[in-house]
Amino acid sequence: MGEFDLIARYFKRPVRRAALGVGDDCALLLPRPGTQIAISTDMLVAGRHFFADTDPCRLGHKSLAVNLSDLAACGAKPLAFTLALSLPGVDEPWLAAFAHGLLALADVHGCELIGGDTTAGPLNICITVLGEVPVVNGRSQALLRSGAKPGDDLYVSGTLGDARLALDALLGNLHVPDAVLAAARLRLEQPTPRVALGLALRGVASAALDVSDGLIGDLGHLLESSGVGATVDADAVTSLIAANRSSTLGRPAEGPLDLLLTQDQWRTLALSGGDDYELLFTAPVPLREAVAQASRSSQTAVTRIGQIDAMPGLRLVDQRGQPLANRYTSFDHFA
Amino acid sequence: MGEFDLIARYFKRPVRRAALGVGDDCALLLPRPGTQIAISTDMLVAGRHFFADTDPCRLGHKSLAVNLSDLAACGAKPLAFTLALSLPGVDEPWLAAFAHGLLALADVHGCELIGGDTTAGPLNICITVLGEVPVVNGRSQALLRSGAKPGDDLYVSGTLGDARLALDALLGNLHVPDAVLAAARLRLEQPTPRVALGLALRGVASAALDVSDGLIGDLGHLLESSGVGATVDADAVTSLIAANRSSTLGRPAEGPLDLLLTQDQWRTLALSGGDDYELLFTAPVPLREAVAQASRSSQTAVTRIGQIDAMPGLRLVDQRGQPLANRYTSFDHFA
Repeated sequence: MGEFDLIARYFKRPVRRAALGVGDDCALLLPRPGTQIAISTDMLVAGRHFFADTDPCRLGHKSLAVNLSDLAACGAKPLAFTLALSLPGVDEPWLAAFAHGLLALADVHGCELIGGDTTAGPLNICITVLGEVPVVNGRSQALLRSGAKPGDDLYVSGTLGDARLALDALLGNLHVPDAVLAAARLRLEQPTPRVALGLALRGVASAALDVSDGLIGDLGHLLESSGVGATVDADAVTSLIAANRSSTLGRPAEGPLDLLLTQDQWRTLALSGGDDYELLFTAPVPLREAVAQASRSSQTAVTRIGQIDAMPGLRLVDQRGQPLANRYTSFDHFA
Repeated sequence: MGEFDLIARYFKRPVRRAALGVGDDCALLLPRPGTQIAISTDMLVAGRHFFADTDPCRLGHKSLAVNLSDLAACGAKPLAFTLALSLPGVDEPWLAAFAHGLLALADVHGCELIGGDTTAGPLNICITVLGEVPVVNGRSQALLRSGAKPGDDLYVSGTLGDARLALDALLGNLHVPDAVLAAARLRLEQPTPRVALGLALRGVASAALDVSDGLIGDLGHLLESSGVGATVDADAVTSLIAANRSSTLGRPAEGPLDLLLTQDQWRTLALSGGDDYELLFTAPVPLREAVAQASRSSQTAVTRIGQIDAMPGLRLVDQRGQPLANRYTSFDHFA
């Protein structure tokens, strides 16, 4: 099978919203009047971002999910994406499963595949996603990293640390019951982009970004962009590791996982785990009910984990408000 | 040097046209009213699209040039691009040269770097470029592959076959004088995207695409999209190999290269060479003067190489109009 057959068989579908899709030199998109286009690119490399033998259906899902997560963090509505794929060879069952996982998530969000590139080479997946953000009275409704103000509440969506738990277990660095690994692995391999929450937070959140390199590192970007500091309840964050709540797994007979790891290990997973794709955002205290409403309308759990300070820097405290040393770092591809 | 230092040092510049550039989750672009956004993605893999030891400045140029060539083929004006870069490690001189070549070409075309991704992995460069195309009276001015009509003239810009000549010489498959290799190598490593010609052909060309996989293969896509056939003068095409015109190299003492290669080898270079990034386009016969005017205003040579037929298929003829067997194929990454 050649390059063009491959595209036609697995990735070409009738164009819906775009004026012109896969198959010409460019795709063409007609933005609605009064909207900004939000653009983000993420590249996933085999052996670096995923194991080469990852279930291709989940990999297709994740490849788009990490990009949709960036749109969510901007409060942008997904429109379309391009896919560039470097493949060691043509493995049809792999391609069929990859396309299935990718396009199923695309359909959930009405995000259309409008073009791309395929080439031979080490397995590499590069997606560029386009979304739209309304401009109201000349003001963009996009959620930026730079809007956090002293006194704002700090929130995170969903759960944190499970992806890293799964990664460590798959690497053999820690041992957990099979049911726990299966649940955590779903979070690693098939993360849920918080698109609906991002849209619901327009006009509510003062700043937002998505957690991909770990909470500590990504919060650092938000604080730096906003020129503020923060105090974070490390225990509130640690409690968000879903795999730690054995009741949610329906396997209480195995006993709580707390016994398996030290408190410091749990904190490391939650604070600098990475690959979470949750939204980290701030909102003024008077908007707590609006945040709760955004959480309900998007059916996405949201937890208040701290507050924004005028004093620069990040301060970790435990549940009693006692300071904790911050020995937690973020993921860096070149560190 | 970490990932964020790398981005800040080599790729972050003040935002100009885009509402928001490198550094947030998404870039934001505010399209002008009455314009379509044209989008294209190309991925370049070391060892496949370029030698790993290619001059990084030229590689930076080429990485963007091949994407701008897609915009040119659509008649789109370059606006902005994202860069995803997978690097085996942080080689600062390499990065500085790559960024220099990339951003110098971006500046020539007013095309702004608005975001992207960097990661560790096998050397891979993925660029997504955005351009704009006016919509006049509800009609897009984009040049598509599908508009060629029987009787239209068939044209190609610039020169063909030099990139393949250089590639074959670098691979040791053929031997040419140093000056010839240097000239041909510039065409391979630093192609000129025909952006100005593409813009000048709006409203003139009936169909267009860029030649990246070789003339025969890419013309096949145009013919298929348009539901037509074509007759091509193979000798007109062969004469476009710049390296073959020893006078242009100022080295007539070395004698013409015709003696080095057979006529069939020359035809193969020109007809199925690839990596040319010239525009292949059609226009109605009454618009010949308009095509000549577009060529002059864009300072880009254009050669008429054949015509569009109602009968499907591609017919090659020599300069006397005698049929030639078509044994020329196109490049396929997975063939």
